[in-house]
Amino acid sequence: MKIASYLFQGDTSFGVVQEDGIVDAKSRLGGGYADVRAVVEAGALDELAATTDNLSPEIALSAVTFLPPIRPSESILVVGRNFGTAFQEMDSDFVGYPSIFMRRNSSQVGHDVPMVRPAASHNFDCEAELALVIGKTGRHIPESEALAHIAGYSIFNDSSIPDWMDHTSRNVTPGKNFEASGSFGPWIVTADEINDPANLRIQQRINGETIQDGSTKDMIFSIPAIIAYLSTFTTLRAGDVISTGSPGGVRPRRDAGIFLKPGDVMEMEIDGIGILRNGVTDE
Amino acid sequence: MKIASYLFQGDTSFGVVQEDGIVDAKSRLGGGYADVRAVVEAGALDELAATTDNLSPEIALSAVTFLPPIRPSESILVVGRNFGTAFQEMDSDFVGYPSIFMRRNSSQVGHDVPMVRPAASHNFDCEAELALVIGKTGRHIPESEALAHIAGYSIFNDSSIPDWMDHTSRNVTPGKNFEASGSFGPWIVTADEINDPANLRIQQRINGETIQDGSTKDMIFSIPAIIAYLSTFTTLRAGDVISTGSPGGVRPRRDAGIFLKPGDVMEMEIDGIGILRNGVTDE
Repeated sequence: MKIASYLFQGDTSFGVVQEDGIVDAKSRLGGGYADVRAVVEAGALDELAATTDNLSPEIALSAVTFLPPIRPSESILVVGRNFGTAFQEMDSDFVGYPSIFMRRNSSQVGHDVPMVRPAASHNFDCEAELALVIGKTGRHIPESEALAHIAGYSIFNDSSIPDWMDHTSRNVTPGKNFEASGSFGPWIVTADEINDPANLRIQQRINGETIQDGSTKDMIFSIPAIIAYLSTFTTLRAGDVISTGSPGGVRPRRDAGIFLKPGDVMEMEIDGIGILRNGVTDE
Repeated sequence: MKIASYLFQGDTSFGVVQEDGIVDAKSRLGGGYADVRAVVEAGALDELAATTDNLSPEIALSAVTFLPPIRPSESILVVGRNFGTAFQEMDSDFVGYPSIFMRRNSSQVGHDVPMVRPAASHNFDCEAELALVIGKTGRHIPESEALAHIAGYSIFNDSSIPDWMDHTSRNVTPGKNFEASGSFGPWIVTADEINDPANLRIQQRINGETIQDGSTKDMIFSIPAIIAYLSTFTTLRAGDVISTGSPGGVRPRRDAGIFLKPGDVMEMEIDGIGILRNGVTDE
């Protein structure tokens, strides 16, 4: 099941994507679920599936404005530097622990909505990442049980304003949190449809040119290791979102001073999920 | 006006603190405000004041369990290394920009609730900080208008697990986000009652011994400068919380290996706001 959140005819809603259309779920589900987070928090994905099963899509994909598929109740947890291919490009030593930062929800738009190049800096690039949506709350989750805590998968465009990431040596927060600079979507694919999350091809294309082409099998910290690490310090709650880091390919362009500009089209593609496509517009 | 959030007789509520008691506001306010954030988002602090004005406190302070006074819709923004006195202790160079990290809401308890020393590490210390609650949404807020965006002030106990802060050189997130390791409160004092936020004494005491004794006048980045900087990259929304950094005094204990342990009592005191007191318990 693919779950999308969107604006349609002026209202925010959510539904199930089938081929080129959407079966609206918000209008059909009982229980007054306000959004996808409420459905996930209530453990009601089966109810969502049953309610929309065997119905034909009634809204064309082209008729909606996509929103990020879920809005967690906290900022999004992101793993930096999680691929050897990216480390090699950075001339940086591997240190034995994942690097964790957070992105505010307002720093992401949905699929097909232009990402915003800030006025404060035109050093603007992007990274393709696999995002996890937590479906079952837990703390101190052992690696052996980690996958059972995942409700579904999505694609994260973890944009950067590198000069603002480097304002201090200690925290990348400012350069990872410019308003509407990143993207998340196009939808959540429920975990039952992803056979092996540790073997998914991840690609980034800009204007059709391949910038990143990696696989989740090359993560330094596996998905279970990330969940175990994060849940050592924080309770991962149903509805939380974690982005898992990006393969190599971005750094050479950054070092060469090649950045995103209005008119560029990014495509982030992950096997079994789809393509997250965004243009660029100036603030 | 002092606004507190609390558990009383099994229900979460909020109200106005007067001397040693509380006038419950949730039960009296129209509009179905679920919590203090909803009041602040609606710009309804005047309504809150009018509704509770001239009423006598009906709930003893000792009868409630304090919660953090407001739960923002994103993780809390925290400024690191904002006092020269702290920089000197760290043998660290000042770099020209504030260092920004985030804390999840679950990493704070309320006043008088024990903070939790994690099982993963007993390197556990704490910092007294002035917290701001945003009352008016804005982006690109000039310093000259920044104070008008603040609804009120509170006290933040920005705890640390230093060895987990240092898991990577790049982001302190893990060591600043252990569940229930920090504290926030005891209440929000509305901005009209704080004459000069740039001249407030900040103290930390542990078991009565003074650990920090500074003033907000010694901030490297003033409150207006922090708001201007943050709002360059993100929209500061009504209900957002920003903690503004901590004076010197903490580092010598940390370097000497003196950490918090069960039985310790922390008091964070800021002029005009009050005392945020917490014990320590083991996970």
